[in-house]
Amino acid sequence: MKTIVICSGGLDSVSLAHMVAAERELLRLVSFDYGQRHRKELDFAAACARRLGVPHDLIDLRGIGAALTGSALTDDIDVPKTGVEEGIPVTYVPARNLVFLSLTLAWAEAIGAHDIFIGVNALDYSGYPDCRPDFIASFQETARLATRDGVEGRPFTIHAPLQHWGKARIASEAQRLGLDPAMSWSCYDPAEDGRACGLCDSCRLRQKGFEEAGLVDPTPYAALPDEA
Amino acid sequence: MKTIVICSGGLDSVSLAHMVAAERELLRLVSFDYGQRHRKELDFAAACARRLGVPHDLIDLRGIGAALTGSALTDDIDVPKTGVEEGIPVTYVPARNLVFLSLTLAWAEAIGAHDIFIGVNALDYSGYPDCRPDFIASFQETARLATRDGVEGRPFTIHAPLQHWGKARIASEAQRLGLDPAMSWSCYDPAEDGRACGLCDSCRLRQKGFEEAGLVDPTPYAALPDEA
Repeated sequence: MKTIVICSGGLDSVSLAHMVAAERELLRLVSFDYGQRHRKELDFAAACARRLGVPHDLIDLRGIGAALTGSALTDDIDVPKTGVEEGIPVTYVPARNLVFLSLTLAWAEAIGAHDIFIGVNALDYSGYPDCRPDFIASFQETARLATRDGVEGRPFTIHAPLQHWGKARIASEAQRLGLDPAMSWSCYDPAEDGRACGLCDSCRLRQKGFEEAGLVDPTPYAALPDEA
Repeated sequence: MKTIVICSGGLDSVSLAHMVAAERELLRLVSFDYGQRHRKELDFAAACARRLGVPHDLIDLRGIGAALTGSALTDDIDVPKTGVEEGIPVTYVPARNLVFLSLTLAWAEAIGAHDIFIGVNALDYSGYPDCRPDFIASFQETARLATRDGVEGRPFTIHAPLQHWGKARIASEAQRLGLDPAMSWSCYDPAEDGRACGLCDSCRLRQKGFEEAGLVDPTPYAALPDEA
């Protein structure tokens, strides 16, 4: 059960990497640099791989032109700071998880791994379409049809075990695994002094998770929602 | 109907680009450099875009590590020269069309295009799983679920009109469009002097197509099957 985990460096995927490493033959962590303004998260993914003693593959997608742009995470568009709203926010990056999963699948087939984990969740999330269970299931079927291993009866499994977990449960599980919250990075729009902004959707979901779990989030935030 | 065509520079996709340009608002051609040994094909894609007067986006994937490797087209593995056989050949590149389509989809959503054309065919082909109609249909459904436009009712269409065309019909259509056969490149394994090898699956399928169509293939081949 050779396994690859896609790890952004955020709370979800860092926790997921530790969960997987405790139970499986974790081959490597994969991260993607697509010019996101919060590239800082990638340092947390690299540190996670070092802790787990596995290689970290940072795939450089900055040369792919306008693909993976058109978002507040990549372009000169303000990251919303007023709270998580209904619908798909401007931080949505077109087809991002589809691109990440496709490249990871190509890699997996080349090295003989058949289990890919991704830390999406569809409960305390930003409303991105490519985090939903329907998408993950459809991708798995497409992956079967796209690959030699798939058509020859050695299909790939796309695991998204956090799909229906709330952030509180993820924060609790991270603590149970001995994972310091400071070992992950959630903020979409770090302040100039390097601190998490405290107000973007991702900071708010993180704060809510720790609060609901009755845990302390030690992240030094540049601002907090109730001060804003 | 803003349209993007994925163009490798081969007979199929160059003919397809001309077919699409004659009927639709062709926005741009997209090609991928993944370190294929027949990178020469990319010059033919670029020339096709110039003829059609549209931008050519060459997406550089050489920085993505071991993804899109594990094939005779990318690694130090001999390209077979003895004829097209049953099954999936060693020239299969893991998940290649899935990666190409995913990146093109990301690009398409960023620029507001909803029609993507790809020149796969599943008749006179090398047996790659990601050229088959099942895969294309499944990808289109995954694309709908992966994207904002898809879930909001502006889905993407993946057009593969050559799916059930034989090479002879493609060669005939290319001629009908006034397209010189020298304007496309098929060979997987060019000889050192730059000529097409004449013996790889792709050269053989091309020769068969022109022959069955009763057309002359002016390609200068380094060798021909009946001499080998």
